[in-house]
Amino acid sequence: MTSEKILQAEKEIEIRFSEVDSMNIVWHGSYVLYLEDAREAFGKKYHLEYLYMYEKGFYAPLVDMQLHYKTPLKYRDRAKIVIKFRNTAAAKLIFDYEIYNLTTGELALTATTTQVFLDTDYQLLWSVPDFINQWKQMNGIQ
Amino acid sequence: MTSEKILQAEKEIEIRFSEVDSMNIVWHGSYVLYLEDAREAFGKKYHLEYLYMYEKGFYAPLVDMQLHYKTPLKYRDRAKIVIKFRNTAAAKLIFDYEIYNLTTGELALTATTTQVFLDTDYQLLWSVPDFINQWKQMNGIQ
Amino acid sequence: MTSEKILQAEKEIEIRFSEVDSMNIVWHGSYVLYLEDAREAFGKKYHLEYLYMYEKGFYAPLVDMQLHYKTPLKYRDRAKIVIKFRNTAAAKLIFDYEIYNLTTGELALTATTTQVFLDTDYQLLWSVPDFINQWKQMNGIQ
Amino acid sequence: MTSEKILQAEKEIEIRFSEVDSMNIVWHGSYVLYLEDAREAFGKKYHLEYLYMYEKGFYAPLVDMQLHYKTPLKYRDRAKIVIKFRNTAAAKLIFDYEIYNLTTGELALTATTTQVFLDTDYQLLWSVPDFINQWKQMNGIQ
Repeated sequence: MTSEKILQAEKEIEIRFSEVDSMNIVWHGSYVLYLEDAREAFGKKYHLEYLYMYEKGFYAPLVDMQLHYKTPLKYRDRAKIVIKFRNTAAAKLIFDYEIYNLTTGELALTATTTQVFLDTDYQLLWSVPDFINQWKQMNGIQ
Repeated sequence: MTSEKILQAEKEIEIRFSEVDSMNIVWHGSYVLYLEDAREAFGKKYHLEYLYMYEKGFYAPLVDMQLHYKTPLKYRDRAKIVIKFRNTAAAKLIFDYEIYNLTTGELALTATTTQVFLDTDYQLLWSVPDFINQWKQMNGIQ
Repeated sequence: MTSEKILQAEKEIEIRFSEVDSMNIVWHGSYVLYLEDAREAFGKKYHLEYLYMYEKGFYAPLVDMQLHYKTPLKYRDRAKIVIKFRNTAAAKLIFDYEIYNLTTGELALTATTTQVFLDTDYQLLWSVPDFINQWKQMNGIQ
Repeated sequence: MTSEKILQAEKEIEIRFSEVDSMNIVWHGSYVLYLEDAREAFGKKYHLEYLYMYEKGFYAPLVDMQLHYKTPLKYRDRAKIVIKFRNTAAAKLIFDYEIYNLTTGELALTATTTQVFLDTDYQLLWSVPDFINQWKQMNGIQ
């Protein structure tokens, strides 16, 4: 029986005036940027960055994005995003996200993104690339 | 036995240079704007606009958004988005979207958004507001 | 004595809900997109597009942008942008813009952008590239 | 003989993947967000925030924005923005900005923005509002 190691990162969100809409709440599209910030933070922490993948000869385009809005963030709210790597045997990168409103203590959003791997000829990879398996091993999740 | 009437609208998409990322494809977040444009086009065609809802005393914030990326759009591709109203008995506005790449003939994206109704005190409505039922009747889908 | 020929293009602006800020007016940064749309429209009309320049072996990055906000555009206002090519002997592309609020008849914004030419090694060109001189001749402004 | 006190703030810029265009450099419109971030940082440091002004009964819309692009920022470059308050007797808020590329040591951009004051009826103020004069005094620049 094993307790599974979870790879996760956190990042504080600074809400920009321009990210708020005329109802004084963060525009629903702005959250896509927060998810991207979270993937950046995860990539920095665990060395799985766009450029690193690119150097290994791979692109990892997003093929699926699901956002569930729970409570609206407002301008001046402090918030943080938590990103977790979902360990899967499929040739995919799946991340789960939670955004917390630190001002109110409420859960603001949950989300999931799925990326696939393309080689430099833009051909889809059907099996997990070696460098990802190595990366998993290095991080103790395989 | 009835054939169901489908309310749908279409809009051509003009891809901006700034919507393309460093891989020369449309950035995944830009599609959120295209969905918004489609809802606008639908609202104009069927008189279900933000301001109209607001005058009736309701907000309709987005609570769920799902995007499935099929093939990437590139700068200079011609594209169109099709938006369809999903007729539901729930107190929700659900739209389904398809984006077609007119240059290649490929399906570029499918998506679904769900909105709920709030009154002017930001309280969630658990039953369909009257003005929506009237709007459905007017458009022959109730 | 000559009347000078003016190269200019026009484009209608559709104001997106997401381009409006919490004061219900178009966010000042959104106008940068309208200017880009105008350059696109100009490029299409007079065959001076990014890709065309790129094929000729040149980039034309923006080095200067000035915006003067006159009256705010609101969500639902109809607006159009007029872009004019400023004919200069310098190795630059200079465009002047005017945005009109068609709903109120007011001038909403004036702006100017300046682009320079880089070759494919990203070296600045100090004299006007030949293909620009040819383009000017073709359009009767040289 | 007096040395003038300068009010200034700094903020590190994190360049998002989505802020980079297909030439791999930061899209010129993204800098508008960095300027906004800088005004936020200045407002926080010197207590001159949008909400504070709003509580005092004033809006401060941007009426002029000038950007001079010196060298392009690239994805992964570290950068910082410096914002300085330009002390003027006019009924205006003028800020000067400099963005430095910390990775290369180069100056990336200089910019200036000008804001005016409106009262809650959206009428332009021709003289400096009292709360701004008090704010200047409090900060030793009047």
